[in-house]
Amino acid sequence: MKIKAVVLEGIDEIRLRDIEVPGTLEPVAGEVRVAIKAVGICGSDVHYYKHGRIGDFIVNEPMVLGHEASGVVTAVGAKVSHLKVGDRVCMEPGIPDFGSRQTLEGHYNLDPAVRFWATPPIHGCLTPEVVHPAALTYKLPDSVSFAEGAMVEPLAIGVYAAAKGAIRPGDIAVVAGAGTIGMMVAFAALASGCAEVIVSDVARAKLDIIAKVPGVVAVDLTKEKLADVVAARTAGKGADLFFEASGSPKAFDDMLEVVTQGGRVVLVGMPQDRVPLDVVALEVKEISLTGIFRYANVWDRTLALLGSGKIDLKPLISASYPFDKSVEAFERAARQNPSDVKVQITF
Amino acid sequence: MKIKAVVLEGIDEIRLRDIEVPGTLEPVAGEVRVAIKAVGICGSDVHYYKHGRIGDFIVNEPMVLGHEASGVVTAVGAKVSHLKVGDRVCMEPGIPDFGSRQTLEGHYNLDPAVRFWATPPIHGCLTPEVVHPAALTYKLPDSVSFAEGAMVEPLAIGVYAAAKGAIRPGDIAVVAGAGTIGMMVAFAALASGCAEVIVSDVARAKLDIIAKVPGVVAVDLTKEKLADVVAARTAGKGADLFFEASGSPKAFDDMLEVVTQGGRVVLVGMPQDRVPLDVVALEVKEISLTGIFRYANVWDRTLALLGSGKIDLKPLISASYPFDKSVEAFERAARQNPSDVKVQITF
Amino acid sequence: MKIKAVVLEGIDEIRLRDIEVPGTLEPVAGEVRVAIKAVGICGSDVHYYKHGRIGDFIVNEPMVLGHEASGVVTAVGAKVSHLKVGDRVCMEPGIPDFGSRQTLEGHYNLDPAVRFWATPPIHGCLTPEVVHPAALTYKLPDSVSFAEGAMVEPLAIGVYAAAKGAIRPGDIAVVAGAGTIGMMVAFAALASGCAEVIVSDVARAKLDIIAKVPGVVAVDLTKEKLADVVAARTAGKGADLFFEASGSPKAFDDMLEVVTQGGRVVLVGMPQDRVPLDVVALEVKEISLTGIFRYANVWDRTLALLGSGKIDLKPLISASYPFDKSVEAFERAARQNPSDVKVQITF
Amino acid sequence: MKIKAVVLEGIDEIRLRDIEVPGTLEPVAGEVRVAIKAVGICGSDVHYYKHGRIGDFIVNEPMVLGHEASGVVTAVGAKVSHLKVGDRVCMEPGIPDFGSRQTLEGHYNLDPAVRFWATPPIHGCLTPEVVHPAALTYKLPDSVSFAEGAMVEPLAIGVYAAAKGAIRPGDIAVVAGAGTIGMMVAFAALASGCAEVIVSDVARAKLDIIAKVPGVVAVDLTKEKLADVVAARTAGKGADLFFEASGSPKAFDDMLEVVTQGGRVVLVGMPQDRVPLDVVALEVKEISLTGIFRYANVWDRTLALLGSGKIDLKPLISASYPFDKSVEAFERAARQNPSDVKVQITF
Repeated sequence: MKIKAVVLEGIDEIRLRDIEVPGTLEPVAGEVRVAIKAVGICGSDVHYYKHGRIGDFIVNEPMVLGHEASGVVTAVGAKVSHLKVGDRVCMEPGIPDFGSRQTLEGHYNLDPAVRFWATPPIHGCLTPEVVHPAALTYKLPDSVSFAEGAMVEPLAIGVYAAAKGAIRPGDIAVVAGAGTIGMMVAFAALASGCAEVIVSDVARAKLDIIAKVPGVVAVDLTKEKLADVVAARTAGKGADLFFEASGSPKAFDDMLEVVTQGGRVVLVGMPQDRVPLDVVALEVKEISLTGIFRYANVWDRTLALLGSGKIDLKPLISASYPFDKSVEAFERAARQNPSDVKVQITF
Repeated sequence: MKIKAVVLEGIDEIRLRDIEVPGTLEPVAGEVRVAIKAVGICGSDVHYYKHGRIGDFIVNEPMVLGHEASGVVTAVGAKVSHLKVGDRVCMEPGIPDFGSRQTLEGHYNLDPAVRFWATPPIHGCLTPEVVHPAALTYKLPDSVSFAEGAMVEPLAIGVYAAAKGAIRPGDIAVVAGAGTIGMMVAFAALASGCAEVIVSDVARAKLDIIAKVPGVVAVDLTKEKLADVVAARTAGKGADLFFEASGSPKAFDDMLEVVTQGGRVVLVGMPQDRVPLDVVALEVKEISLTGIFRYANVWDRTLALLGSGKIDLKPLISASYPFDKSVEAFERAARQNPSDVKVQITF
Repeated sequence: MKIKAVVLEGIDEIRLRDIEVPGTLEPVAGEVRVAIKAVGICGSDVHYYKHGRIGDFIVNEPMVLGHEASGVVTAVGAKVSHLKVGDRVCMEPGIPDFGSRQTLEGHYNLDPAVRFWATPPIHGCLTPEVVHPAALTYKLPDSVSFAEGAMVEPLAIGVYAAAKGAIRPGDIAVVAGAGTIGMMVAFAALASGCAEVIVSDVARAKLDIIAKVPGVVAVDLTKEKLADVVAARTAGKGADLFFEASGSPKAFDDMLEVVTQGGRVVLVGMPQDRVPLDVVALEVKEISLTGIFRYANVWDRTLALLGSGKIDLKPLISASYPFDKSVEAFERAARQNPSDVKVQITF
Repeated sequence: MKIKAVVLEGIDEIRLRDIEVPGTLEPVAGEVRVAIKAVGICGSDVHYYKHGRIGDFIVNEPMVLGHEASGVVTAVGAKVSHLKVGDRVCMEPGIPDFGSRQTLEGHYNLDPAVRFWATPPIHGCLTPEVVHPAALTYKLPDSVSFAEGAMVEPLAIGVYAAAKGAIRPGDIAVVAGAGTIGMMVAFAALASGCAEVIVSDVARAKLDIIAKVPGVVAVDLTKEKLADVVAARTAGKGADLFFEASGSPKAFDDMLEVVTQGGRVVLVGMPQDRVPLDVVALEVKEISLTGIFRYANVWDRTLALLGSGKIDLKPLISASYPFDKSVEAFERAARQNPSDVKVQITF
């Protein structure tokens, strides 16, 4: 079928144009059709735009961008009971093989066959209407706007990191990195039981934004040592939990220094190269370290936290462009204005 | 030694008088001396006062009451490094055998040899000064008053219940029972990652108090069915978690009806008699059920949550009496005024 | 289509006859066709045979029996990569909705939409050929015979119980009940890290069978008290783990007496009525109690244990009848000969 | 007091001589006196002997060696109930501060104040009699000899690694490294639920020893690729669990290649330098990685497994020397004969 969409043609070249894509707009059993209302631009979208690839994922053909989306249900296939036309929703963008071993074991995100919007060669959702599995489409609470609904995708990474961190009530956590994902992790960790989250970065503008959240202690690494702050905030005990969201090798040394005995590390950031790890330091403290990849089974939890008011992401939406100005939206996102957190496109 | 203390002489008979008790006020290695500043009256204190026993614990000799206490360090024994004279503190009231198997395994609260304040035949802390293990004495954050410090003991039960519940971010929980402990569990569950806590009771006055907390949905069981409310709040999925804090057999049927597949139950309330359990109902949903007994390893976590401002217990302190009016304080507590949550005694 | 099958016509009436059932023998994408080689008769088959119902599951129409099966792949649908014609296999008998919330969360056994062989109104597998999802069809190791392959289903319950029990190396476990399922749990618990398993029952013949397994201590409840044996075998500490596989209310009192502090209980047996539970006894030891329903994600694990030789079920296969003597096989099973464990039907 | 003991005087210099050490041979409350019967020589003893240090632990003063010991109780202090004179026992060699935070939390091995035999400046147990906390002294089952009792210490590391690995029934595990500790991990993993353990090394003599254990698949890395063997043994799925007991950086690349999605790694070996870690490879599979340090709360479990016959370590005791030939025993151990696993000294 032919759709109008935001198409990445190649490095540095995005166009809003008609494009022929597989599939139809008629939902079959277990599917719904959704009219898109808002789509956030993710760092990965920008990375494909500027570099044409992320690791082994290479954009060889024109590809529709976008995977952080909310919208309204416009048609419902057979065997769908929890959604109806008119429902305000957001969509989990990765579709696994529902019968795969990984799916049956509860981590469908690890299914190698997963088809994820705007990860080549799969097209994304920056187009007026999409068809999607109902099982991966979630109703927005009344208190959550479409703009916030399009923030569920990045927040879900934070909530999944928090879930994998097995936060115990009153934990003190460190989040290394105050980029969008680091901020999402900080919000999620605070909403998930941490008494305090220490966020470290070298980017002052980002720290200033996240420092406004109650419970966040911002550490400017150009001025303070993380270890000093953690020692002061924990009476020398060390942090219970460390979320690595910077991708910086330096953070891997920090983590082994500041995490307490028996503490946990969740790895979210993706370093470019291998990182030297002090294995003995990790062993003598019996630190556990878990990597995460996207998310599974947290979309409704993320919405519950957002809907409850425990997490307020509205201040992070820095700019909003209509669909026909999508190219400008990408140019803005690509400039990486230090005080921009999220640029969105609305329909 | 002879101390001045609030002494339970027998059923319905409390006196503030001098009493001879074992021990001295000189801290040895690992101990501190604390001048008491505030002591809360617990339901168990009142129960001993009115009934002379709780289960197998029988008050056969005059016993000093009180176990919810805060104070100021007035002397420090050898080998104590984390406390100094003048520190504002609160005290965990159960002292285990530090070399016991249960202690080494991390659940010192289950050590049968534990000596717990005001549990016969161990004297409590309603006396101007006590000597206590430094390992069980915790510094109050500057933002936590002595009155709030004396609330840490009941709140620790809530935090421990929340920890045992293994809350996942965004869980919807039910708390059956809006008594003091139920309220503590509700506060703790919300601060520990629940998006929403549904509190049920038949006592309207208690529900009105807890309903003011953001995130709490109060259910008056005289007017609504718990199952209806849970279904409505969870889109039919059921509650992720159920905290039983009522001791009512009715709650055991409710829990199996309203908890979702794979959900968890934490048993905090103590029913008088055996409770008929629908084992097959529990099995077909694979519900897990854990009982808790007091708490272990949560005192500093509780203080971190209280100090962070995530939990505000000040509205629950209903009345405060000076030490020399202790008998009046107990009479007030024993009246069980429906709008009273916590009566305290100050020094 | 019309198939030849073992049909339950009503209470006490089984016939081997042709019957019209839904479906075809042509596997579609993700399916395989299997020629059945062996089917075990389960206690549930016998219960439907003698009583026409189990709880809310009522046999209103003639129903094909059988759900414990092994066979040989005779045809393979599209998109099946791990199986080929000629593979020796066994089949997991419950087919969930693969896109349901329960499936995505990793406990597809709890999906209310699950279709389970020989659970009314779903037909079973006592018929020469079946079509089944490849995702629920598992290759037998070379060392595992068809007869043993047809034992995987009951053993999987034991392995799932062991997995849910979160056995720690060297645990001492109790299994209440030495019926087929109790035996499976005992085998699985020993293979999964228990140093010793204490199996209790009143049926001497069953105890004599399981007592032959190294690591099993058999307790004849008509002669000994379980608490005495557990105390003797654990130096007074108590059992780490308790598997309830008897359905007897008496076992629920035993468990709270013999399980140690912080111990765990897995409920497998299905009592007829509600069981009075001593909640306070459970709380003061902080015992955790989990119910299980069938199994999920353990079929390949069960085969690995069986194939490794750690578990030898051959002595439990008491009798074997050819398909055309199926009615005799059921009559034998229904007699419940005390020394019979498993009666099978072969093709 | 003056004792006769095996004293490390400095690098390459061991003497059996009288030495003045702190303490007495009179057990106080909570202590027992034990006549030593067997002591194994550990790799760490040999390392101190040949190098005078391990990391930051430096032998500056003459130090008694030995920490793997069994013996007979010869005196019992007050408040000891589970041991009596004449009991055959083995001793856990690290004594924590029993009131420390780490001890109360259940991981006393992580207490920085732990005093561990033969770790400078703490003297070891190669001397005829020692006094030890009863809480860390364990009765040997009748079926366990003194020689085997002195093997409990290294086996406890294996059991602790297995416990930290959270083995699920039927897991396929890899153990990298067939040294003494690698062997202990392999024994423990098999006894704790693994269906199969793939042990890899470049040392043929060690592989030949461990290959005799049922369930072990030995991989000679000079001839085969670990990834090929794992793929073949797991039908391409990958290993559920990986125990790193080699200290070799190569193993860290292997682990990320051969472990399946959601798999776990336990780090036991201690690499000399930092190891480059492929963080992204770890993340896309959501592999969890935990380091361990000695052990906690597994001594009685280890004895239960040894006493049950599930683990037979007798073939690993390569040579035995009487106490007065202790220097020869150390010379033998230091030669690192490829077919030697454990050299012991008996009393």
